Amino acid sequence: MNRRQWIYFCIVSLIGCVIWFLPQPESVDPRGWHLLAIFIATIIGIILKPLPIGALVILSMTVATVTQTLTLTETLAGFHNSIAWLVVFAFFISRGFIKTGLGSRIAYYFVSLMGKRTLGLSYGLLLSETILAPAIPSVTARSGGVIFPIAQGLAKSFGSEPHLGTERRIGSFLMMVAYQGSTITSAMFLTAMAANPFLAGLAADAGYSLTWGTWALAGLVPGLISLAVMPCVVYKLYAPAIKETPHAAEIARHKLDEMGKFELKEWLMFGVFLLLLILWIFGAFFNLSATVAAMVGLSLILILGVLNWNDVVNEHAAWDTFIWFSTLIMMATQLNTLGFTPWVSEQVVHVVGGMSWLPAFIILALVYFYSHYFFASNTAHVGAMFPAFFLVAIGVGTPPQIALLVFAFSSSLMGGLTQYGSGPAPIYFGSGYIDVKDWWRMGFLLSVVNIVIWMGIGPLWWRLVGII
Amino acid sequence: MNRRQWIYFCIVSLIGCVIWFLPQPESVDPRGWHLLAIFIATIIGIILKPLPIGALVILSMTVATVTQTLTLTETLAGFHNSIAWLVVFAFFISRGFIKTGLGSRIAYYFVSLMGKRTLGLSYGLLLSETILAPAIPSVTARSGGVIFPIAQGLAKSFGSEPHLGTERRIGSFLMMVAYQGSTITSAMFLTAMAANPFLAGLAADAGYSLTWGTWALAGLVPGLISLAVMPCVVYKLYAPAIKETPHAAEIARHKLDEMGKFELKEWLMFGVFLLLLILWIFGAFFNLSATVAAMVGLSLILILGVLNWNDVVNEHAAWDTFIWFSTLIMMATQLNTLGFTPWVSEQVVHVVGGMSWLPAFIILALVYFYSHYFFASNTAHVGAMFPAFFLVAIGVGTPPQIALLVFAFSSSLMGGLTQYGSGPAPIYFGSGYIDVKDWWRMGFLLSVVNIVIWMGIGPLWWRLVGII
Repeated sequence: MNRRQWIYFCIVSLIGCVIWFLPQPESVDPRGWHLLAIFIATIIGIILKPLPIGALVILSMTVATVTQTLTLTETLAGFHNSIAWLVVFAFFISRGFIKTGLGSRIAYYFVSLMGKRTLGLSYGLLLSETILAPAIPSVTARSGGVIFPIAQGLAKSFGSEPHLGTERRIGSFLMMVAYQGSTITSAMFLTAMAANPFLAGLAADAGYSLTWGTWALAGLVPGLISLAVMPCVVYKLYAPAIKETPHAAEIARHKLDEMGKFELKEWLMFGVFLLLLILWIFGAFFNLSATVAAMVGLSLILILGVLNWNDVVNEHAAWDTFIWFSTLIMMATQLNTLGFTPWVSEQVVHVVGGMSWLPAFIILALVYFYSHYFFASNTAHVGAMFPAFFLVAIGVGTPPQIALLVFAFSSSLMGGLTQYGSGPAPIYFGSGYIDVKDWWRMGFLLSVVNIVIWMGIGPLWWRLVGII
Repeated sequence: MNRRQWIYFCIVSLIGCVIWFLPQPESVDPRGWHLLAIFIATIIGIILKPLPIGALVILSMTVATVTQTLTLTETLAGFHNSIAWLVVFAFFISRGFIKTGLGSRIAYYFVSLMGKRTLGLSYGLLLSETILAPAIPSVTARSGGVIFPIAQGLAKSFGSEPHLGTERRIGSFLMMVAYQGSTITSAMFLTAMAANPFLAGLAADAGYSLTWGTWALAGLVPGLISLAVMPCVVYKLYAPAIKETPHAAEIARHKLDEMGKFELKEWLMFGVFLLLLILWIFGAFFNLSATVAAMVGLSLILILGVLNWNDVVNEHAAWDTFIWFSTLIMMATQLNTLGFTPWVSEQVVHVVGGMSWLPAFIILALVYFYSHYFFASNTAHVGAMFPAFFLVAIGVGTPPQIALLVFAFSSSLMGGLTQYGSGPAPIYFGSGYIDVKDWWRMGFLLSVVNIVIWMGIGPLWWRLVGII
């Protein structure tokens, strides 16, 4: 830790200590209150980053266990959470897309197909992302690792580069669409972003389930509308100078030629991916959970040699996520069990109790969404706010399924607001194509568009297919 | 997988299928029998290695879950086993010895101190290993990664190299002592080899606990005697040509000079290590489990910056071990719960039922020890044989604590028998200093010496300090 990080570390520790010794409400178990202190310190730590999130949760586990706030068994309980393992397995599988080159091939294919005009080009990128989204739960790997380099390469090929002052020629537009698109694709599938299963796990703890299939069905129509509308909005309000790009399709075709024919491993990966989608979509009918489906996919990938065991063990992002994911979900679960989360929601429900549920819920949903200006991580946001907000929403009378879906989709969409709002954001921002001012302006505008589509049109679709 | 591996894979699958459909004893739950088929296939897989052990256990988990032999929750249960996490945390901590160079410094220090004669030199290496053993649970990392390169460097400096035909000059002796020493230090501490906590976990499942402190106390005297006697035996029966090595101490001093003064991080690592030892030895008095102690050590290492989070996430051996360890311990536990292990031991007890416990137990212990000729992994051996052998030993009337300690120590010591008997064995064998013939001859001789010391003198010591 450098000096600044030490200061942050002291601040975080101090906040924890202060909360620890605050007067405590009677209905909360004292252990629950102490855990709250550790939990809030952790969340603030995730925001201030004195240490990486993984190291922070190790410290939190240690403090919780040594102070006997939690028993060792309780502390380790998160590690056999089946949703945590869904994320781990999905991370492993996603490595297969990257290692075989299948991810890039898909992206180049759609660019070669749709890339004659700038707008079409942007749709090509979005379409590739949407296809990859169900099986690459790291939005940073998917958008930052697969789509971003392709978008950047295309922009450069048109001479659009920040250091030449030509970024607005086409690069800024492509980057904006690709980044905003990643928040939409993240919202569409349970396995498209690590914080999605995290939220589903927290909801399951509260007694409400959201399967892979239901999530995908509910997100299908609003997601497609969003994907269709967003590039047009950006095209109007953040227009590229270059509108025709016959060159782009050529480049993509050239790249595809370079890649040569589909290799056996790509076919195998593609086959496993299709099987995985089928199992995820229809698994509920034969009682196969998403985690078991992912386990089957991973086993096939290992047997067929698409990945070897070293690739799996070296997939650091999976282990990193596993540690923080399991620990945070364990703490959130215990806060609920020990009476803290119910107590908070009772207090809030008491305040907004006079309202009917719809205006109360709209306020809750908007506060949830726009408080993301203060978060640099979807995970921290979901962990800190979702459990209480969800209980409050139900407490004021919101139908649980509506509340669950709105919070679930918001948790991805809100990432578009700022240049630090989700994992890949710093990558896009760091490339220098988009101004902070433009990011915030377009981020806010598109948040309104997304809210109208997902929370306005969404419920009609959910009613139509019988989810609510 | 190459062709040979595919054949092995088919053999392993076939064995699993055959056992699956064998006629089943009535007292065993059918799920238990199916799990047995998966378990035996896994163990044979670990021996034949069609895939690395981690990949194999993923397949086993998948088969167990998809066939509904186990529920998903049961399958994942091993992952919050506190002993599995002790191993993971200890692996992380051991990285600190290697990263800071403290491990090598300790070894060079003792060589500089005791290295004037060949025999003294070998004691210097053993002493360093013993000091590192409690906190480096990977015997491969400790002996193969820290001690082996130093022994090899010293041998070369005396012109003793296999390709020159001069290996017996001093190198063969040093390698033999260093390798055999690693099996003794592995036996001395719960955290000195990954299969030790595995065995302790299996024993705990059967209702018998073995704490860090008890293990270390029981192993102390036999361990020290073994460490004192073994080099003399090797010195007599596998003598080096060079007996005086004034040069070696000089080299070590030179290396220490090169390393310069103790760096701050080395001091910090050393401090954490001492604290860890204190917590491990005396933890039982203030109700602090070995896992929590390791958690405290890891937290300090992260806060003090001895390791950063990347070092931790990149410690692949930890994740690899975590996966197979948790899965094997889960399967062994379930075999017990579902009635298979008790059934086997009943059958064997029935056979040896006429004997008094001492001869029966001696036979059991010797069979356990020498069947290691057929195993290339301590883990596979412990997993396959310990649960049933332990129950049988108790069944014929052996005092449980004696049976537990004898099996526990055997599980490390038996590694000396062959050039494939434990993790670092292939490293030493691969260096070319030791003939297969010499390895087997000395391995067998030293196994007798070790058995006399650990099983002959050991119990007197255990009685003296009140462990049995």
